[in-house]
Amino acid sequence: MTDDVPNPALLPAGLMDLLPPEAEREAVLVEALMAAFAGHGYERVKPPLLEFEDSLLAGSGAAVAEQTFRLMDPVSQRMMGLRADTTPQVARIAATRLGLQSRPLRLCYAGQVLRVRGTQLAPERQLPQTGIELIGSAAPEADAEVALVAAEALARAGVASVSLDVTLPTMTPALLEAAGVPAALRQRLALALDRKDAAATAELAAQAGPLAAALPVLLAAAGPADGALAALASLDLPPAARAIADNSRAVIAAIRAREPRLRITLDPVEFRGFRYHVGVAFTLYGPGATGELARGGRYVSANDEPATGMSLYPDAVLRAATRTPPRPRVFIPLGAPQDAVRALRDQGFATVAALAPTDAPAALRCTHVLRDGAALPFNKDD
Amino acid sequence: MTDDVPNPALLPAGLMDLLPPEAEREAVLVEALMAAFAGHGYERVKPPLLEFEDSLLAGSGAAVAEQTFRLMDPVSQRMMGLRADTTPQVARIAATRLGLQSRPLRLCYAGQVLRVRGTQLAPERQLPQTGIELIGSAAPEADAEVALVAAEALARAGVASVSLDVTLPTMTPALLEAAGVPAALRQRLALALDRKDAAATAELAAQAGPLAAALPVLLAAAGPADGALAALASLDLPPAARAIADNSRAVIAAIRAREPRLRITLDPVEFRGFRYHVGVAFTLYGPGATGELARGGRYVSANDEPATGMSLYPDAVLRAATRTPPRPRVFIPLGAPQDAVRALRDQGFATVAALAPTDAPAALRCTHVLRDGAALPFNKDD
Repeated sequence: MTDDVPNPALLPAGLMDLLPPEAEREAVLVEALMAAFAGHGYERVKPPLLEFEDSLLAGSGAAVAEQTFRLMDPVSQRMMGLRADTTPQVARIAATRLGLQSRPLRLCYAGQVLRVRGTQLAPERQLPQTGIELIGSAAPEADAEVALVAAEALARAGVASVSLDVTLPTMTPALLEAAGVPAALRQRLALALDRKDAAATAELAAQAGPLAAALPVLLAAAGPADGALAALASLDLPPAARAIADNSRAVIAAIRAREPRLRITLDPVEFRGFRYHVGVAFTLYGPGATGELARGGRYVSANDEPATGMSLYPDAVLRAATRTPPRPRVFIPLGAPQDAVRALRDQGFATVAALAPTDAPAALRCTHVLRDGAALPFNKDD
Repeated sequence: MTDDVPNPALLPAGLMDLLPPEAEREAVLVEALMAAFAGHGYERVKPPLLEFEDSLLAGSGAAVAEQTFRLMDPVSQRMMGLRADTTPQVARIAATRLGLQSRPLRLCYAGQVLRVRGTQLAPERQLPQTGIELIGSAAPEADAEVALVAAEALARAGVASVSLDVTLPTMTPALLEAAGVPAALRQRLALALDRKDAAATAELAAQAGPLAAALPVLLAAAGPADGALAALASLDLPPAARAIADNSRAVIAAIRAREPRLRITLDPVEFRGFRYHVGVAFTLYGPGATGELARGGRYVSANDEPATGMSLYPDAVLRAATRTPPRPRVFIPLGAPQDAVRALRDQGFATVAALAPTDAPAALRCTHVLRDGAALPFNKDD
């Protein structure tokens, strides 16, 4: 009953029905993530699905402007957008409605986001999104906290083994800026780095002068955090790049202080997909090939407040999490005593009542039947 | 921190942010309602927020066509609608994706609905909606079940005292049809009944002939179910109206058999707001002036399948439910041992970590502080 083959005649591309038992699994998972966030003092906000496009697309919202459905508000005659990301809305709430609340402010959210077009790899146009935002602290401990809380939430939602990839999306621009690399060469270098093409990076960096010489070393340094940090420490970096490197060391140390067992990798030159991040950026992966489950990092919130956060994608988490057994269903014959039925619900059974003499346990997909006040396992071949 | 005074410069009319602690309360409430539905074998489905308008507005969806936001799908170049009601989507799923599953089929849902305009009394343009649909049974026991499951869900969500109002939206049309009342008089009678104007109803019914004479009696009969059923039994009704009356008696008897304590009223001539219902219709009220918390009843689903269901409005339920105390917040000083912190979370505390030496429990709205491994109550005047 999964939604692998949506009927294009019924639903628009990338928009799907979630059926039993997947819809229930997703909801349970989202609430498990939110409970983990609440356990660390993150308080839930629920912004509306629609708001004026000028506020929705402000700040970090500009990154998803092209992906945002727009419609006219007949009441105000102004354009509204259907959110493609919740972070800009949380930034707006933090700056306005919660502007006077003490910092740091810890907020969390869960809801749907929509986008105009899917991609070949990710065709969905409606996605559940949950996340946390920690606003008003520039401390490395804040970045460490959001990474750890997201990792813990994934573990509580049944993802067996989580690993954290730290990237520094401002490192490459800082190095190229300091080296005074001309624009054309800079673009070719960015492309070579994006492709992780060590030979091209080395060749182009050599043309770009001594300060760019760090780039091939940093590209090669990507891997387990300790090795990558040692490589960063060994380099003679210009001040802006040194500050980024030192900050990443402090963030990773703060993570280790709270959770020494988390597997951490560091890729100093990776920047793909982090369009508004200004410090460390994070990606959390599940076991095996389950892919990216969460991403986030440091950004500048509304009113130039320092902020850091993580977005989790419950649809991806669902694929990575262990399956829990479905609720057992017990068939309730017509006229059964209601207190026995209530007791079975309290024990965790779904009580499926016969509505007519023709109703039968097999057709109603029951695993048990109520007999003599107890739920007896039911085998449809009996 | 409720949303009583939204800033019109920030958000479109009728679209609001839910802030702490309301957003959390609403989410907890929705999951309590859904858990109650699941306990009775209702399985969760999650249709998308957007779908093609021709499927979204089919069947019972026609009733909300004017209230549905529409937008162009750039992929298919077809018009899509943003759902204003979830029932038509569940009907589509039942008829197509779950078309081969045995009947009766029990489905439930929770999500957001949007509408183009609010009203003066209900300005919201985004509302949470949860509900159950029982598809494929015409039995009075099916109607009884959806009313009872909705009432039980409200009780489990903290609504102290629920009462059920049963109405028969097809009764008046059936009587007027059988009496052969001309259209103009029929409209005036409908208006008088809608206003519960006994004098006007009596005067107009007298003009409409002997079969319409039941109308003033039925208008006066509205009240506790037993009295209203007795009035219905005493009348000489034409066959269609008699069938409606007998069905309501059977539904109420089936409710009483499972839950004798539920307070039930019956209003045989009320029809307001039930535009696609074909049998009994239900409204559930909370205590005092908390108003309507749920409504539903019997309708015809896709492929002419008999169906019955209830929609619950969590925003209204939230106002009627008793408040639960918020999660206590314990301040965690810098460098606290992580196992003590974890133990506090397991006890239900939100652990709010200091990120800098300047962070203090009062500013972070903590009710407790961690000291010597335990959470001690914190008084900000200490």
